[in-house]
Order: sequence, then structure tokens, then C-alpha cells
Amino acid sequence: MTHATLLISCPDQKGITAAVTVFIFNNNGNIVSADQHIDEQTNTFFMRIEWSLDGFDVARGEIKGEFNVLAEKFNMQWTLHFSDKLFNIAIFVSKHLHCLYDLLLRHKEGQLNCRISLIVSNHLDAKNIAKEFGIKFLQFDVTRENKEDQELRQIEALKKENVDLIVLARYHQILTDSFVQQFPSKIINIHHSFLPAFVGGDPYRQAYQKGVKIIGATSHYVIEELDAGPIIAQDTTRVTHRDSLEDLIRKGQDLEKIVLSRAVRWHLHQKILCYNNKTVVFE
Amino acid sequence: MTHATLLISCPDQKGITAAVTVFIFNNNGNIVSADQHIDEQTNTFFMRIEWSLDGFDVARGEIKGEFNVLAEKFNMQWTLHFSDKLFNIAIFVSKHLHCLYDLLLRHKEGQLNCRISLIVSNHLDAKNIAKEFGIKFLQFDVTRENKEDQELRQIEALKKENVDLIVLARYHQILTDSFVQQFPSKIINIHHSFLPAFVGGDPYRQAYQKGVKIIGATSHYVIEELDAGPIIAQDTTRVTHRDSLEDLIRKGQDLEKIVLSRAVRWHLHQKILCYNNKTVVFE
Amino acid sequence: MTHATLLISCPDQKGITAAVTVFIFNNNGNIVSADQHIDEQTNTFFMRIEWSLDGFDVARGEIKGEFNVLAEKFNMQWTLHFSDKLFNIAIFVSKHLHCLYDLLLRHKEGQLNCRISLIVSNHLDAKNIAKEFGIKFLQFDVTRENKEDQELRQIEALKKENVDLIVLARYHQILTDSFVQQFPSKIINIHHSFLPAFVGGDPYRQAYQKGVKIIGATSHYVIEELDAGPIIAQDTTRVTHRDSLEDLIRKGQDLEKIVLSRAVRWHLHQKILCYNNKTVVFE
Amino acid sequence: MTHATLLISCPDQKGITAAVTVFIFNNNGNIVSADQHIDEQTNTFFMRIEWSLDGFDVARGEIKGEFNVLAEKFNMQWTLHFSDKLFNIAIFVSKHLHCLYDLLLRHKEGQLNCRISLIVSNHLDAKNIAKEFGIKFLQFDVTRENKEDQELRQIEALKKENVDLIVLARYHQILTDSFVQQFPSKIINIHHSFLPAFVGGDPYRQAYQKGVKIIGATSHYVIEELDAGPIIAQDTTRVTHRDSLEDLIRKGQDLEKIVLSRAVRWHLHQKILCYNNKTVVFE
Repeated sequence: MTHATLLISCPDQKGITAAVTVFIFNNNGNIVSADQHIDEQTNTFFMRIEWSLDGFDVARGEIKGEFNVLAEKFNMQWTLHFSDKLFNIAIFVSKHLHCLYDLLLRHKEGQLNCRISLIVSNHLDAKNIAKEFGIKFLQFDVTRENKEDQELRQIEALKKENVDLIVLARYHQILTDSFVQQFPSKIINIHHSFLPAFVGGDPYRQAYQKGVKIIGATSHYVIEELDAGPIIAQDTTRVTHRDSLEDLIRKGQDLEKIVLSRAVRWHLHQKILCYNNKTVVFE
Repeated sequence: MTHATLLISCPDQKGITAAVTVFIFNNNGNIVSADQHIDEQTNTFFMRIEWSLDGFDVARGEIKGEFNVLAEKFNMQWTLHFSDKLFNIAIFVSKHLHCLYDLLLRHKEGQLNCRISLIVSNHLDAKNIAKEFGIKFLQFDVTRENKEDQELRQIEALKKENVDLIVLARYHQILTDSFVQQFPSKIINIHHSFLPAFVGGDPYRQAYQKGVKIIGATSHYVIEELDAGPIIAQDTTRVTHRDSLEDLIRKGQDLEKIVLSRAVRWHLHQKILCYNNKTVVFE
Repeated sequence: MTHATLLISCPDQKGITAAVTVFIFNNNGNIVSADQHIDEQTNTFFMRIEWSLDGFDVARGEIKGEFNVLAEKFNMQWTLHFSDKLFNIAIFVSKHLHCLYDLLLRHKEGQLNCRISLIVSNHLDAKNIAKEFGIKFLQFDVTRENKEDQELRQIEALKKENVDLIVLARYHQILTDSFVQQFPSKIINIHHSFLPAFVGGDPYRQAYQKGVKIIGATSHYVIEELDAGPIIAQDTTRVTHRDSLEDLIRKGQDLEKIVLSRAVRWHLHQKILCYNNKTVVFE
Repeated sequence: MTHATLLISCPDQKGITAAVTVFIFNNNGNIVSADQHIDEQTNTFFMRIEWSLDGFDVARGEIKGEFNVLAEKFNMQWTLHFSDKLFNIAIFVSKHLHCLYDLLLRHKEGQLNCRISLIVSNHLDAKNIAKEFGIKFLQFDVTRENKEDQELRQIEALKKENVDLIVLARYHQILTDSFVQQFPSKIINIHHSFLPAFVGGDPYRQAYQKGVKIIGATSHYVIEELDAGPIIAQDTTRVTHRDSLEDLIRKGQDLEKIVLSRAVRWHLHQKILCYNNKTVVFE
């Protein structure tokens, strides 16, 4: 059974929830879940509402148009998504393959409701895995000099496959601003620290040197500033003086897999709204 | 600014959310928060909706009556609560006083929006603390023989103080069925294990003997069956072979304080609905 | 560089640590790590001591004999292990393959210092994975009637491969007592609950019905009694009323993988001592 | 029964453990616990060894002298502590009193084996609590201009009371370098963030603005650089977009209490060694 999901944000005022739910009810829709949140600092209203299209009076292609009347009234930013419209994902990866493997296995087990159309890498290490899972693999050598050109070719490939979500599963290249700007809130990265601690390269080594007693992992949308985009999910685990750098890396990898797949899953289920460089996650 | 909060459960059908939100909107209320949940096993709809009474068109005393029309239509079970109507709490305690102290300090710091009207104990250990915090203290010797009589006297005292929430903060007496039945979903207990493991007496010793690597604490509503009521909150912490029974007790006490106060807080904020011997917690 | 590791338990008395460390020092060994623990309830002494064989004066084949003098004096139970002597593992699995996959990938990444000699199953689902990773796969149909016979054939296969650790990675068959008795403290199981809660079949469903707010996973050595052997590792994660049974299963699988691989790793590194149906884990 | 505890660090070489344990054994001591660690980066050996003085052949006053022979041979830095020699603690606090209260209650319950000799504050808020618990209270107005003078008076008071551990339980003044240098590894601070994230003032507000999904608390020894000393303990808890700044503060306070008291407890039990601006904690 197909569901429709609206993600809405707008200035808060009286009657938004009533208007949206009445719109659905009057058209004979059955609300499956509804969540809302008001950010009091900015007086912003956020809503996620999901309803069954079974018996809904408005034809699928006309929902956008009909809802727009209401949306304009309340000055909404909004997206509409249908549950049978699968996301097309591209996974970017370098030499550490655990997150890639994890996403592929979760996909195989039915945990990730999407198509994985493309694996992109600056190395060849993931090539065999891509083959094994029957996914198109593209390798792009990236140097400081050719980065912009290679990114243009990457963008071309992404567009060709209609990719609408890019997952950086330990992709060890910094994307240029112009790449990032083409995919706003459509690139999810895993950073192997509890951000904002240990931005940048080799965060486990930084954590080891600092002697922290807890390490973490953070998934976030990518913005121009490095490791500074809206945080989607974080998790942490305990370490001790007995843990070597290798132990931190090993323990951290378990966090990375969980935290990245959680973010991707939430994105696929339309659970995330961004504002103010933060996220609302209707878990 | 006073808020009204409705807690609703009913068989799921189309239009419930719309009807409730329109009721509030048409009467000029501003929804502050709204949460809903559908239990698919039993096809039950749950809702918590909170709105500001500032400018609301229905007089406070008449909201119940007006809403009842709608409630009957959907066959709702529901409660209405006003945020300026403070709960009256009685805390029952025996010889372990850490949870009592914790609740009193949180109350003093403004974390628990309620009145603490009464401290009840089968011992005298808490007497001085009650005095120090200026709270009425009643001690009832409880034996197997006099338990029913003493409970009647306790109930009398609770009614006199208009107590509407009883918190068993490590009260080491099993309440009789007839006591429990007088306060349905109005008695919160802390059990010092991750239920359903280690029901009954001395759960830390049971955990120690069993050699578990994690201990826990559970807050739940009290029903007739011992330690079997709807679970509200749980938390766990790691232990090792180096931890003695005393260490387990010490570490567990930190959990107990957090888990009990969380449940009490949620109850005070009308966040909890019970069904099917489980809870929906609109955290 | 090869290390030797002694795991020792004996009645506590003065001088054990001194005797053991002097034994190593006088033979020119360099202690790499040493841990000890005294269980005060039973007055039992536990020790794990690891030293480099580089320049050690006693020939490898004679260490056992020489140490035995000392061991008899203190009435020790002890094992000696050399780090270059890899464990031979057999993984038993049924239809849920996530733990199997996880162990194989960790092994591939170098996290598990062992040989995986055999994958055993009562089904055929894992056959292709075994092939892909180049590991021998044996399938045994198991029914109530043929279980004992099949187990005899399994034991034969295990002996042929010199298997010294059996990992039940979601193997949904209860082993007979006679099988278990052949491999004391050599069978590690993952149970998908925080034992002792939810023993037996379908623990996630039990947890769902109970309405717990935390689910867990437990790895333990297998003894005759079901799900009752010495606990090695446990972990937990938070769930809410919004989590369906499928969500519990999905979240739980992440725990299972972490908790099982942790136990296997500790076993491979000789970190675990059993006593009194509990474990000492020199993490 | 009195125990002696040695904390040792020195360059690693063969025979250290043997020498120390033989020293204790030959003098008829019974080792109660022994832990060691080797930092491979710096080739440093760390040891904590605790033994019963019951029947020990060396008189208490002469242990230092006798052990020194061995200590010099191995170029050790070391401290010797007797379990019946209680630490003298001073607690510094400003306006947030939850950590102070927590320490006092734990002390009352016997969890902290020390004397609390002094409560120092730049405000008067804690005065009544000090009185209630029968502890000397000193208030020092601190301004930018008089800070050095006031610190001199504070040091005088600390020396008069023979204070050997200062606990900054949310003391909102930055100590001068000269104060800090007088108490190396003898000042424990609680910082209300998971350091190194959110150094400095108002870390909960920083966390809230950043939109993190996890908050933390860190206890550490104080060094001249702000919030940069060796980390002793850390813990974290989950937050969501629904949590206001006040919720973060409330949730964080529970962490602060646990993390600070854990550090103090470990210090009192001689569990902590510092090196390289990190800690070894023999938990």
C-alpha cells in the first residue's frame, strides 16, 4: 500500500496542524503517522505527516497542486514523497570498506528501502565488492589538480543514474563547494568522531593522543564547511588506557556502521528536516 | 501561560487527528505540541495534544463537556489536564533513601512540577529528611498481620492530602491488591533490575550470582502482580567481574535515581499512556 | 614475536603472583601484560599473564613441564597458549546470516586472529557465503529423531578439522547434553536478549510483548541448561513504543554482531576464565 | 585491615613485576590486587599494587625507605598510600549546587572514603548546605583585580586544613597558573561537555546551538591550560531536537554527578596514574 509523506516547515501560527489534517481527512486519507515540533527560538513549525493513498480522493499527480494552496497560505517549505518511489543512492568510498559492506548487506536484508545505483571511488579496492553485489562501479583518480574535472564527470554519472542521495561511506576526499552546492541536504557523510570534537583527518589518532575515555561517530549532511553540516545521528562507546589506536579504530568502525546506516535509513523514510544547520529527526 | 493537555486512546479510524485539531483550532487554541501513535497489533490510536489556553474560546470548566461530544463519536478513553493544576505526590520509602533524596532535590531545583505532600514509611529513617524539606511524614509499622489495617490508614491519609500520584522510592513492602486497585496507573515503582530479569527481592544479589555484565533499573506502574506492571523507563550500566555486590548496589543506585525521576517527570507532564500492560511514552 | 599466555585459577594464598612472575623473570621472559583477580566469596585467585618468548630460556616444548612444578604447589588449574598457535573455529548457523557475515568480514579485516575451518548448518542458506569466502560448508538436516546421529557426524567433522572453538552464530538447534559435554567452555553462543530475561525461543517477540524499553544481546559459553551458561558479554540498546517487532529485530542484530564478535575475540586472546558459572574477563 | 598501595611508573624493562611482587612476598605481604599496563608508544610501565599490612614484616614507617632501593634501581616515580590515611578534600563550588550535594550525600552513604574538610565558594549559595552537613564554609569574593590575593588566602586555608585533594564541583572561576602549580594532579574538575568539544563557558548552550545528538560530561585533572588536563572519566547521554537548552542542562547534570564522583572515588582509591597529559585508570 503506497503512502504519501509531507515534510513541512514554516513560521508557526495557529491552525497549521488542523489545516493539514483536514486536507487529508476531507480527501478521505487515513493518517498513518504524524509528528510535529516547534522550535521556540525561531518560532518555526515542523511537521511530518504520512497517510495511506488507499482510497485517497486526490489523484497522485494532483496532490502537489492541491496542497500548494494551503502551503502558500502558511508560507511553507515542503516536500512530498511517495513510498513506492525508491531513492537512488550512490555510495562514495575510498579504502576503508566496512561501511560500504554494511550498507550493502543491510540493503540485501531489506533494511534499506532504496536502489543502490552506483559505487564511486578514488581507488580500486571496492571494485570486487561492487561486482559481487552487482552494482555499477566507477573509479576516478583524484588529485589536487584534476579534482574539479573529475567531480564534473562524477556529477554527470550521478545525473545519468538519477541519483538523489549520495552517501560518503568513508570517502577520503574533500568535495569542492560547487559539488556540494549541487546536492543540498542530499549528501550524507560519516565522520569517525563525536563532532564537533576532532574535525578533519585521522580523528581516532587525535582521540588517542588526547586520551579521551569515550569515542564516537557522527553522520551529518555535507555543507561547504568541512565536518560542520547538520548532525543527523551520533553514538559513542567507552575506551580505556588499554585500548591501542588499533582498538579505537576497531571499536569505532562498529559505531560508524550503525550511525551511518541509521542516518541513511531516516533519510529514506523522510524522517529528517534541516534548519539552522541542525536537524529535526522524527525518529 | 496555562496549557491544556489531552491524552486520548481509541480504536483507530479515519479523521481522529483532524477532528481533534479542528476542535482546538475552531475554538482559537494554539497547539503547542501534538504526538500520535498507532499500535498496529491492536489497531489502537493514541494521542497527546497540548495547547495554550491563552485566547481559547471555551471556558476552562466547559472544555470537558464540549470535547465529550467528539470523544463519544470516536469511542475515546481520554483525560484532560491543565498545566497549572499541580499533582499532589506521596513518596513511600523504607530504609534506602537515595531515591527519596534525589526526588526532593530535583523538586527543589524545579525539575519536578508538583507538590510533594507526604512521605510515608514503614521505618523512621526518612523522618529527619522529611523535616528538613518541610514535608509531612507518616510512619506505619507494617507486619503481615496488620498490613491491611495499616493500608487503610495510609489510604485515608492519601485521600486527606488529595494525593494523585504515589511514588514507591524503594518502598520494601508489597502492596495488597485492594490498595493497588484504588490507584490504577497512579503508583510508580522503581525496581532495581532490568525487568523482567530478577523479579522480587534482592535483585542486585541475583544479578551478582548470575554474573551478568550489565545491570539495570526499571520504573513501572504498579499492578497486582509483583514487578509486572507497564514499564515506563529503563536504563542499564556495565559491570565487570571486579565489581563486588556493593559495587553493583552503588552503580545501580545511580540508575535508580535517573530512571525513577524520569518516570515521575513524564507522568507529571502527561506523557504516558497505558495499554495492554505496556506504555506509550510521548517523550 | 610469539607470546606465551598463562590462564591460572587456584585457591588464593600468599606468594602466587610472586612465584609466577619470578618464574618468568628468572627464565629471562619479558612480561607484556599481567592481570589478576581475587573472588572474595570463594577465595579464588585468577591470573592472566602474557610474556614474550623472545630470548626466553625455556624451550617452548618444555614450558609446560617446568611450570607444572609451580602449578602443583599452588594447586592451580591452568592453560598455556602460544600466540602463533591459531584457533580453529567452526561456525554453526541456521537461517539468520548477519552474525556469520559479520564474523567472516571481521576475520577478513584481520580483527579475528584464527582460522575459520568450517561452517555447519541445518539449512542451505549459508552455502553460497561459505563458498564466497572459501570455507568448507557442511549441511546436516536435523530432526528430533536424527539429532543424536547427526551430532555424531558433526563431532566427527569437527575433530577431523581439529576445531577448538565452536561459535553458534544464531544456530537454531538445541545441542544435546552429550554434544555440549564434549566441548566444555569451547562453545560460544549468541542469545538475542539480555539474559536471564527472555530465555528460549523468539526473545524479541517476548520483549515486544512485555513492552521493555531496552533490548539486549548476550554471548555466553554453552552448558547443558539452555541459555544458562557463563555470560561473557552483553550489550543493550533503547527501544520505544514506536518500534515494531521488526525494528526490535533490526536493532537487536547490531547488538548481536558486536556482542558475539567481542566474545569470540576475547576467547581467541585468552582473556576469559570461567568459574562458578560466571566469567572473569581480563579485557 | 589496613592496605598499602603503590602506584608506580617507570621505563619498561624486564623484571619489574617480579621485583615488586617478590618485595611484597618476601616481607610476608598478601597481594590484594595488582594491575599493570605498558604504554607501547613511550615504553612506559605502570603498576598499581595493593597488599594487606596484616602480618607484613616491614614496619609501616619503614616501607618507603626499603622500597626506595628497588625504586631507584628501576628509575621509578612512585607513591605509597595507606588505606587508613583518609584524604582531606576541599570542594569548590559556585551557584550550581547539584554536584556538591551529590558528593555530600555519597559521602554520607559511605561511598567516598575521605574527610570533606572545607567548602569554598565565590558565592554564598552553598553556605546553608555546608552548615547542614557540618562542614566548614569559606566564601571569597573573586574579581579580576583581587583574584591573586584571594587565591593566596584560599591556599592558606587549604594548607591549614591539610587538604590534599581539591574538587571543583562546578566552580565558575578560572584558577591562576600559580594556584594550579601548587596542586599538581590534586585538582579534579568537572566540565559539562564531552571534552575536547565545547571548551570554556556555557558548553550546554554551545551544544544546543550546534545541534549535537549526544551530550557529555568530563572529569579531569586541572592544568594551566583551560579544560585541557588529563581526562579521568567521561559519560554521554542522548538528546533530540525536542530537548530545549533547559533539558540539556537537566540531563547533563545527571552525567556531571556521576562522572565527577567516579573520578573522585578513583582518586581516593589510588586508581589513577597520569602521564603524557593522559590517565591510566586501574578501574
